[in-house]
Amino acid sequence: MLVDKKLEEFLDELASSSPAPGGGSVSALLGALSSALTSMVCRLTENKKGYEGVRGEIKKVLEESEMLRKRVTELIDEDTEVFNEVMSAFKMPKEDLGRPKKIQDVMKKATEVPLKTMRECYKALELTRVVADKGNVNSVSDAGVAALTANTGVLAASLNAIINLKFIKDSEFIEKTTQEVTDLTKKSSELNKEIMRIVTQKI
Amino acid sequence: MLVDKKLEEFLDELASSSPAPGGGSVSALLGALSSALTSMVCRLTENKKGYEGVRGEIKKVLEESEMLRKRVTELIDEDTEVFNEVMSAFKMPKEDLGRPKKIQDVMKKATEVPLKTMRECYKALELTRVVADKGNVNSVSDAGVAALTANTGVLAASLNAIINLKFIKDSEFIEKTTQEVTDLTKKSSELNKEIMRIVTQKI
Repeated sequence: MLVDKKLEEFLDELASSSPAPGGGSVSALLGALSSALTSMVCRLTENKKGYEGVRGEIKKVLEESEMLRKRVTELIDEDTEVFNEVMSAFKMPKEDLGRPKKIQDVMKKATEVPLKTMRECYKALELTRVVADKGNVNSVSDAGVAALTANTGVLAASLNAIINLKFIKDSEFIEKTTQEVTDLTKKSSELNKEIMRIVTQKI
Repeated sequence: MLVDKKLEEFLDELASSSPAPGGGSVSALLGALSSALTSMVCRLTENKKGYEGVRGEIKKVLEESEMLRKRVTELIDEDTEVFNEVMSAFKMPKEDLGRPKKIQDVMKKATEVPLKTMRECYKALELTRVVADKGNVNSVSDAGVAALTANTGVLAASLNAIINLKFIKDSEFIEKTTQEVTDLTKKSSELNKEIMRIVTQKI
């Protein structure tokens, strides 16, 4: 598993001539970094004097961000695994009659993984809004970094979803996915701007 | 060193109640992720048929991105170290006459680290422009993720530079730093938009 590797080894593997891990796994990692920072800000808030009034809400955010971090961390590996499945499908002998269907099936799966990453990163962004607004003000720059990182996770994963769509023939799948990618990207950019306004006012 | 930790442990440490590593180290990591992806795209381009004309340029970008990756990876630890120095300075006994000067010195250092991160992430962004424009078109989404990540590194590090400036009394230092932060943020956002136009056309 990629998360069992040392950070330096992960970076080396990313930089290597193997196409996986690549941008898809990095997108998921951005979500994991964002939710880890959100959890940190929660922990630096929950027992701090002056923040008694938000303790319950912050505790709930911490629970959610730790669950989210677990899910999005799994997507780091999932993206690399599905990429390897794609490569195997394309390497099937051309005369194999099952090849076209196998490619279609695996390309849909390879589109759904970055789509899941987009959804999780958007949820991570929603959590950063709470910590930017109500968390320990000394950590507001960390809340800001968490927001920027989650929003970038959404945008980065969208590139991976879109590039995979090119290989898919199912027009209903293409339409539905394109719509969701467009919606999530737009919502994410708007929410990120709103959070940046909160952060820059407090910084 | 943080880069010697497993990715999962790094995320756990980030999420912990200790304020370091925090947003500053994440900003530097974004630069490292960007340059690693740039190196990958270079390696997937340099020996590919049809890319003979750009081989020399791509080789040069690879050399630069690998050197940059090394420098920016060091900043992941440097940011955490300087944060711990800041904490030590604030913990000095108030009656210690050297305390105010020590705080000023260490806060300047703590501002210069994210400033260095901003400069390196901006350089990383410049390299992604070349790979988005001339690299293997099959990896254009990776070049896009590299660009988004580098630009976010610039913005994220700017929050850390600005929050530290609040503690600094040297008005010349404040003015000079604010100017550089503003310039780099603006240049980076513009270049990122330009690269996204290249990427979305090719995707």
